[in-house]
Amino acid sequence: MDKRIRDYGITVGRMQPGIRNTITDVPGVTVGHVTIRNETHRTGVTVVVPGPGNAFAEKYTAACYVHNGFGKSAGLVQIQELGTLETPVALTNTLNVGLVWDGLVQYTIDRCRQDGVRAASINPVVGECNDSRLNEIAERAVRQEDVLQAIAGADAEFLEGDVGAGTGTICYGLKGGIGSASRLLRIGGRDYVIGALVQSNFGSTADLVIGGAPAGERILKLRRTKNDMAVSRKDQGSIMTVIATDLPVSDRQLYRIIRRAGVGIARTGAYTGHGSGEVMIGFTTANRVPKDAPDDSGLLPRTVICEELIDKAFLAAAESVQEAILNSMVCAKRAAASDGSVFYSLAEFLPDCLRD
Amino acid sequence: MDKRIRDYGITVGRMQPGIRNTITDVPGVTVGHVTIRNETHRTGVTVVVPGPGNAFAEKYTAACYVHNGFGKSAGLVQIQELGTLETPVALTNTLNVGLVWDGLVQYTIDRCRQDGVRAASINPVVGECNDSRLNEIAERAVRQEDVLQAIAGADAEFLEGDVGAGTGTICYGLKGGIGSASRLLRIGGRDYVIGALVQSNFGSTADLVIGGAPAGERILKLRRTKNDMAVSRKDQGSIMTVIATDLPVSDRQLYRIIRRAGVGIARTGAYTGHGSGEVMIGFTTANRVPKDAPDDSGLLPRTVICEELIDKAFLAAAESVQEAILNSMVCAKRAAASDGSVFYSLAEFLPDCLRD
Amino acid sequence: MDKRIRDYGITVGRMQPGIRNTITDVPGVTVGHVTIRNETHRTGVTVVVPGPGNAFAEKYTAACYVHNGFGKSAGLVQIQELGTLETPVALTNTLNVGLVWDGLVQYTIDRCRQDGVRAASINPVVGECNDSRLNEIAERAVRQEDVLQAIAGADAEFLEGDVGAGTGTICYGLKGGIGSASRLLRIGGRDYVIGALVQSNFGSTADLVIGGAPAGERILKLRRTKNDMAVSRKDQGSIMTVIATDLPVSDRQLYRIIRRAGVGIARTGAYTGHGSGEVMIGFTTANRVPKDAPDDSGLLPRTVICEELIDKAFLAAAESVQEAILNSMVCAKRAAASDGSVFYSLAEFLPDCLRD
Amino acid sequence: MDKRIRDYGITVGRMQPGIRNTITDVPGVTVGHVTIRNETHRTGVTVVVPGPGNAFAEKYTAACYVHNGFGKSAGLVQIQELGTLETPVALTNTLNVGLVWDGLVQYTIDRCRQDGVRAASINPVVGECNDSRLNEIAERAVRQEDVLQAIAGADAEFLEGDVGAGTGTICYGLKGGIGSASRLLRIGGRDYVIGALVQSNFGSTADLVIGGAPAGERILKLRRTKNDMAVSRKDQGSIMTVIATDLPVSDRQLYRIIRRAGVGIARTGAYTGHGSGEVMIGFTTANRVPKDAPDDSGLLPRTVICEELIDKAFLAAAESVQEAILNSMVCAKRAAASDGSVFYSLAEFLPDCLRD
Repeated sequence: MDKRIRDYGITVGRMQPGIRNTITDVPGVTVGHVTIRNETHRTGVTVVVPGPGNAFAEKYTAACYVHNGFGKSAGLVQIQELGTLETPVALTNTLNVGLVWDGLVQYTIDRCRQDGVRAASINPVVGECNDSRLNEIAERAVRQEDVLQAIAGADAEFLEGDVGAGTGTICYGLKGGIGSASRLLRIGGRDYVIGALVQSNFGSTADLVIGGAPAGERILKLRRTKNDMAVSRKDQGSIMTVIATDLPVSDRQLYRIIRRAGVGIARTGAYTGHGSGEVMIGFTTANRVPKDAPDDSGLLPRTVICEELIDKAFLAAAESVQEAILNSMVCAKRAAASDGSVFYSLAEFLPDCLRD
Repeated sequence: MDKRIRDYGITVGRMQPGIRNTITDVPGVTVGHVTIRNETHRTGVTVVVPGPGNAFAEKYTAACYVHNGFGKSAGLVQIQELGTLETPVALTNTLNVGLVWDGLVQYTIDRCRQDGVRAASINPVVGECNDSRLNEIAERAVRQEDVLQAIAGADAEFLEGDVGAGTGTICYGLKGGIGSASRLLRIGGRDYVIGALVQSNFGSTADLVIGGAPAGERILKLRRTKNDMAVSRKDQGSIMTVIATDLPVSDRQLYRIIRRAGVGIARTGAYTGHGSGEVMIGFTTANRVPKDAPDDSGLLPRTVICEELIDKAFLAAAESVQEAILNSMVCAKRAAASDGSVFYSLAEFLPDCLRD
Repeated sequence: MDKRIRDYGITVGRMQPGIRNTITDVPGVTVGHVTIRNETHRTGVTVVVPGPGNAFAEKYTAACYVHNGFGKSAGLVQIQELGTLETPVALTNTLNVGLVWDGLVQYTIDRCRQDGVRAASINPVVGECNDSRLNEIAERAVRQEDVLQAIAGADAEFLEGDVGAGTGTICYGLKGGIGSASRLLRIGGRDYVIGALVQSNFGSTADLVIGGAPAGERILKLRRTKNDMAVSRKDQGSIMTVIATDLPVSDRQLYRIIRRAGVGIARTGAYTGHGSGEVMIGFTTANRVPKDAPDDSGLLPRTVICEELIDKAFLAAAESVQEAILNSMVCAKRAAASDGSVFYSLAEFLPDCLRD
Repeated sequence: MDKRIRDYGITVGRMQPGIRNTITDVPGVTVGHVTIRNETHRTGVTVVVPGPGNAFAEKYTAACYVHNGFGKSAGLVQIQELGTLETPVALTNTLNVGLVWDGLVQYTIDRCRQDGVRAASINPVVGECNDSRLNEIAERAVRQEDVLQAIAGADAEFLEGDVGAGTGTICYGLKGGIGSASRLLRIGGRDYVIGALVQSNFGSTADLVIGGAPAGERILKLRRTKNDMAVSRKDQGSIMTVIATDLPVSDRQLYRIIRRAGVGIARTGAYTGHGSGEVMIGFTTANRVPKDAPDDSGLLPRTVICEELIDKAFLAAAESVQEAILNSMVCAKRAAASDGSVFYSLAEFLPDCLRD
């Protein structure tokens, strides 16, 4: 098991994490990867599966937010209109969105056939980052079958760092990847959890901030002794954020919650450059939405939190995303590009980059 | 009582209207006017009061939609964020939005003091049309007190046509005004109602369509014998639409419903010109939102309709708006501008404009 | 050549069409189809190619609008953020979006390799309608190669009706398809054109309106003698609209123009039901956006029309879409579903459905 | 002249400020205040005047963004639709939006009469913060005349801190106010400037971050010796941000730029709580938009920057807002509430709160 950011003595924020401190602290949520790593490719697919049942038959209340729309994410239009998620969320490389989208369609058709559910209109949700600095992206190495395999292998325990859709990503000029974190909330005497998973591929090296310290500037100084070390001079490349919770919220409340992912990103130093597509997708396991009306009334009962109490969820989202980004970086091993330049791991600069 | 469009034998759409065929068929909703009509002014204020209680203490689930944003409506930002309405909705002339806004503040402060409710942050909702062809708009003839009076006089029975905020408006080159209509829906064995109220001030004369017939073109022909008759050559001026219902819906569902007001407008012939600000504001009397959490759970129960059943509400909104526009016109008396040109009443062209 | 709606003596709106009265009246725009029609499939792909050059190297100023977001269109996020289109627009069936998306990627990679343009991040734009009443949609019969072939065959002359992405669509319970129309505008002494292309797959039979006449209701009466005739009882299924122009506009102005497509749809009678995804995508051939800065200034000259003159473009968009829908229907031949029920052509009811 | 944050040796970001390091470094922009400070009121109005001419006759290309919509800002709807600003931007207290709106109307009418410009439809832009902890807000102490006076007194030199609309605001539990800052950009060999002005009234004390240091937590420790010191336990109250530039940009580009104000806010530590309305309004002095078409062509020339170069503007906006917030705080003197509790000035904790 890789060391995570807390294992370096760095505490992010003030709220308490869940047991695993990952998105799978939300009961039912699982994560699966397929990693493609060979001579020409470093890429893959990561799926967040919202729960064990048939998501198409019993949809999840969901929301999405486009923080910076330089990006190719698919499936957002329908989430915005209907406030529901009906497939796993898949993350991959930029040019693989189509094939991964098709893989989610195949998965849903198969699953619905098995469950006797009619499925002629399916809305796959796919996020992406551009991993072309480490991956021959034009070849779309991720195939439809990889999506099926990633879903089949999804589990509450999952790897972070340079795996799945994070295999080829770069973050703040260091190796990026998949990272996760979670926060506990107590509302009305009950415990809830908010968890985040990110695919990190953004930020210029100079901008990296860890716990308020200008880590990126120090890394640039430390770099002077590392001739092969690559850096990022522009804030570009994207970050995808998936946020899950078991808090009973409406799609509008969820939308407000996931917007605070931007605060988590900003706390790691970036200003969200032109070329950094930043998309947030959120769902709750409360307030499921059946495909067909459950009874003759035509009505559905919902439960939402009082808006006055939503601040805890805002902060939980911000802190989870901030910590998930740092986890994605420290868990990722260094990787060399085809030109020989190396994207180091943040782990190699800890704790040096935190001290003057 | 003025004749309404149905009294001319014209049936709009296929759904059944409510008892009054106005927005006040929604139980609890009332409408009030203050009309200002003198040498220099033809203007006023119209308020839609969502219910008898304190709207600030127990807010209404609400939504708003900007169909064409050439307009000065106030209060939309917070409705979009929080999905709630906490004051009556007031309609007035374009340059009077500020003073009417201030009147709604005064009303809410007074009401909350009386009820022992703290109110330091109030979101008044004001829509407007430009009535400057019949009104010396620069003088802002509507005062704060007029708002208080309009609310005090609000009732389930109310006048349509050239009253209140419709006193000086022009619609399809004829006299516009305030109009209303409603539709009944049966869902899951229960009856619900959707009602619309419009302030009509849009459309070029040639574009008017009534029941599919090119009424506007025929009116232009009939006009040849009326030397004093004014027309509108551009589709500009705005239409404000307020939609009320007792259907249990979420703010997102309500947003979808009120967007269909645009269909109702289009069915009267207009294409929504550049200068025609078109704003829809909707609320439901179901799913009230208390200012403070009602119990220790921090949770609120809600009821929503199954999305698959929402089509009836869409059509009800479209038909109500279409009929409300026609009511606003036939109920309005002709009015002369200061240059002597006359804005005729649609009533003067019925039934002639329906026949070849 | 199929008879189009004007060939039946029906004039739509008051503006003058372009020479072909199709979207390809906009200089440079071409349209291509691949049609798949066999025992189990009636589907295909239609592409609108914005011009002869490399769209990725020199992008098109573009806008998109979601009228009703029950749909799976891809590529909208980046259009909204950057205001540019960099691939042809492809239309297909709902579950084929992924493979068609991948086809557009392949096309763009090939084209850019040929032109020596680096392309690591590509934003394919794909719209879709659900043709599952006539097509075994789960099999995704459209393959990546079909996209390449449709683009290769794109031409200023193209078929309408049941071809390409319109092969299996249903409109107002009759056979739908691909349709197009255009309008001329004169601004400041110069001529411009606005053209629309639709993939029509929406509307309940009863709602169809042609030239103000309740054609749908009459068709339902005429149907009593046609035992095999299918109808649509719900307004669902979607309509995709592509609007092209050579008018110099900004992305914001273009957004305003394409929103008026909703007026064109409403004029054919539909109210845009819950299940009818309606998406508008627009581009102008003026104001191209080079991928890289063209000179050292870092600045680009643009030309826009005075907003006060935009009404003509609004009306042109509305009329083009209205006529394109009717063309899509009259040009489509009848088709039988696997259960033997038949989707008739509107042409079979003309002119009967226009008369009492 | 009050000491500003740089006078304490604190450098914000890495870009170079303009000469004054205020929003008025943008040529033509001026700022005016009217301050109301008496037994019951601590409030006022601040105006940002975009230039010396008639803004209504020659409008400014503009954009607005709602970061968190718990707020009552007026005028945003039309900015979003038309991309123009036609009045000064006024900031005031929450319940005074109506009267200040009316004051902007009066100003514009007077100005247009003087200039012989017809003005029947005016879109005043007003932002607000809730200053009710220090101000008897229900009385709406700011009158229409105060707006006229603030505009008349607007100048390139202006006070920061507890003046104008910042007289009664609280930021991170300390005294808030009006603050400003600017950044220089060099693009294509030419210099441009981006300037921000904020009305700061947000943040919980514990969250304040200065230069990465947890200043708020230290202030809470230092407070133990100050019995009368008030704090903020919630992140609520709002921040209004006005951003000006002379960079030639489109309204869409401007929208992207002002969204980065959120990064500036996040860098001061807050996560944007539920009750903190956060609105950004931006304009450029390039690309003016005449009310009427300037010549017979009906066309307007525009200049925009290549999107690839926009990152500098993003960072400039983020840094300017971050520094403006800190300036608003250090320039504000302490103020006592009616209950005797005191909102200290950040200046009283500098440099102590920067050290462990």
